[in-house]
Amino acid sequence: MPVNLTAPDASALHPVAGVTLGIAKANIRKPDRKDLLVIALDPASRVAGVFTQNKFCAAPVTVAREHLDLTQGAVRALVVNTGNANAGTGATGLEHARLTCRSLAGLLGVQTTEVLPFSTGVIMEPLPVERITQHLPDCVRDLAAAHWREAAEAIMTTDIVPKAASKQVTIDGATVTITGIAKGSGMIHPNMATMLGFIATDARISQELLDVALREAVNQSFNCITVDGDTSTNDACVLIATQQADMPEMTGRLSGHFDTFVAAVTEVARTLAQAIVRDGEGATKFMTIQVDGGRSVEECRQVAFAIAHSPLVKTAFFASDPNLGRILAAIGYAGVDDLDVNRVRLYLDDVLVAENGGRNPAYREEDGNRVMQQPEITVRVDLGRGPASATVWTCDFSHDYVRINAEYRS
Amino acid sequence: MPVNLTAPDASALHPVAGVTLGIAKANIRKPDRKDLLVIALDPASRVAGVFTQNKFCAAPVTVAREHLDLTQGAVRALVVNTGNANAGTGATGLEHARLTCRSLAGLLGVQTTEVLPFSTGVIMEPLPVERITQHLPDCVRDLAAAHWREAAEAIMTTDIVPKAASKQVTIDGATVTITGIAKGSGMIHPNMATMLGFIATDARISQELLDVALREAVNQSFNCITVDGDTSTNDACVLIATQQADMPEMTGRLSGHFDTFVAAVTEVARTLAQAIVRDGEGATKFMTIQVDGGRSVEECRQVAFAIAHSPLVKTAFFASDPNLGRILAAIGYAGVDDLDVNRVRLYLDDVLVAENGGRNPAYREEDGNRVMQQPEITVRVDLGRGPASATVWTCDFSHDYVRINAEYRS
Repeated sequence: MPVNLTAPDASALHPVAGVTLGIAKANIRKPDRKDLLVIALDPASRVAGVFTQNKFCAAPVTVAREHLDLTQGAVRALVVNTGNANAGTGATGLEHARLTCRSLAGLLGVQTTEVLPFSTGVIMEPLPVERITQHLPDCVRDLAAAHWREAAEAIMTTDIVPKAASKQVTIDGATVTITGIAKGSGMIHPNMATMLGFIATDARISQELLDVALREAVNQSFNCITVDGDTSTNDACVLIATQQADMPEMTGRLSGHFDTFVAAVTEVARTLAQAIVRDGEGATKFMTIQVDGGRSVEECRQVAFAIAHSPLVKTAFFASDPNLGRILAAIGYAGVDDLDVNRVRLYLDDVLVAENGGRNPAYREEDGNRVMQQPEITVRVDLGRGPASATVWTCDFSHDYVRINAEYRS
Repeated sequence: MPVNLTAPDASALHPVAGVTLGIAKANIRKPDRKDLLVIALDPASRVAGVFTQNKFCAAPVTVAREHLDLTQGAVRALVVNTGNANAGTGATGLEHARLTCRSLAGLLGVQTTEVLPFSTGVIMEPLPVERITQHLPDCVRDLAAAHWREAAEAIMTTDIVPKAASKQVTIDGATVTITGIAKGSGMIHPNMATMLGFIATDARISQELLDVALREAVNQSFNCITVDGDTSTNDACVLIATQQADMPEMTGRLSGHFDTFVAAVTEVARTLAQAIVRDGEGATKFMTIQVDGGRSVEECRQVAFAIAHSPLVKTAFFASDPNLGRILAAIGYAGVDDLDVNRVRLYLDDVLVAENGGRNPAYREEDGNRVMQQPEITVRVDLGRGPASATVWTCDFSHDYVRINAEYRS
């Protein structure tokens, strides 16, 4: 069951001026479920995107990158299907992704290149593209500014809870809205972007700064989570700016407005990213891995991900067993070349577990046990060799992870 | 249950002239089980060792490295305990490891530095060193050349089956014996050596060549396996040469005798390494991951380990579900920078699954299903970009892996 995560209240998701969303049931993989989403954007909208670094990237990722380049971000619609990833599908997959865009473009009266396609689901199976094109008109008829909650439902795969977040912030006297949705539960170890995330704002902002804002927000959110260390073929995160807020266009960092904006986008992105971990396949615990005292952020991230990826650490957390030597082992193989283990300190929440290369003499098993019972736990490592820090979020590894992934196709 | 692995027949394990083994029950962690082993070596024996690269290496690893350096390989005894890793134990752990060596040295009438210590078991708990020193006399009384099978039992932790292998080979007219034991089941992703492996031979060989032989054999065996990607704090593999075979000393590669010797040591090491995978925690399938057509062995190993470490691939194999797109995803994120996915071919045993960036049009799900039912499966990837190859061995990821590791300390 998801860890401290409930479905978002539709009324808490602020509509974004210039964005409408339409949902349909296209029977892509399972009957009678929302599995097709169109997001339509007013003219003048700008879009930035980051995508998976996986070499076997999905056909829609290739096409979305192409269309973003060709339009320089002047995109008019996004189309998303769940149930089939259209990845590992070769030339046919690319044709299917392009056909989907062309079909929606015709319905909306825009150019094919102004449409970005996204898919998520099973890999290496042909996309049932006729069912998609057949149901796109249903999506278009359904377009409404208030459909963020339904949109979050329409992109779920093994997700148990739909994921959405919304925030309003004042910039230069104007109220700016940021609302986003995301999906993801397994095959989560983003590299530049996570599974699927769509965040929209009405802010007025140049294309260049929009790209910067997306990268900064993603680096502090989706790029800091892992469920199972598997980087997906379909990861994509998009930031849409409809330019409709009552404010001057942001074109530089100097005013401070941009920092306010990035902080707000990061907050929405982080809420979505953490929601993916809270709903991680089979998750029973939400773990924050904070590594301080490193020489560089990079080495802190290395150590944090070594801990977060260790099946032995993750199964111990599932068992609520403070078998914490496994964390020392992970720190030790994380690849920090000249690490002095005698300077490393390990904390479980507020409990000092290890120092001087071994267990803290004052550590008592009952303290470890007390912390391990909690659904949310912070593992803090002080490397004792510098000023840098990094934080990643992950979940434990349970029987249900194996069950879900052993049964996923059936 | 272990995959096609049964306990070795004691009579098939050739004694090695100059080596005796003694076992005791020292109650280190559990009552009434063999948990303490002494291997005594005749004078003139030479020993080579490779050890974990984990920075949190165990105290016995530090001491064994020291003693090997100080004696330049002229070692007289090894002492091994199971049940406690003596890792993450700081300065006290080092004292305990040294005390163990001193105690055994006194019993055998050798120098403390002529004893190498080894431990395996739970991390970050104090070694019950009194119980070890108290029972070392039992081990010494038990010393016998025929005790290889009992020795294999005495070093098990979560292993279900004891692991031993033996081979005789003719070198320069003389019969040379090679016999080894190993343990390991979880926390298996060796880097320079695996959990614990002890291989002995009566060959006459220089210290320099013995070191070379061990490194070559380990690179083709223990360094090619993974169960869960966790590199242990205690990995160690030792090659002992008692110099008692009726042959001239091997001092150079030129004769061809050395290659015969290395091939035989590698065969024993590989049998032991594969036994560790066959007995991997919760294993139900033995998987060979062969990557051909790479530009370098290193990139082939990168791809092979990406597949072998993917929890999604491993759970699909557990389910006997040919959800093979997950393998493409792992190839894609393995980090081969300019990989052309259109040249990659994926085979499951003899079945061509994917080519040209997608599923082979002739592939039928029933062919994938047929192969997936087998207990031993070869995944072959042709990267289509060079002459290099690499092979690694791994097992699937089952409910029992989670159960075993969630319950390990209880």
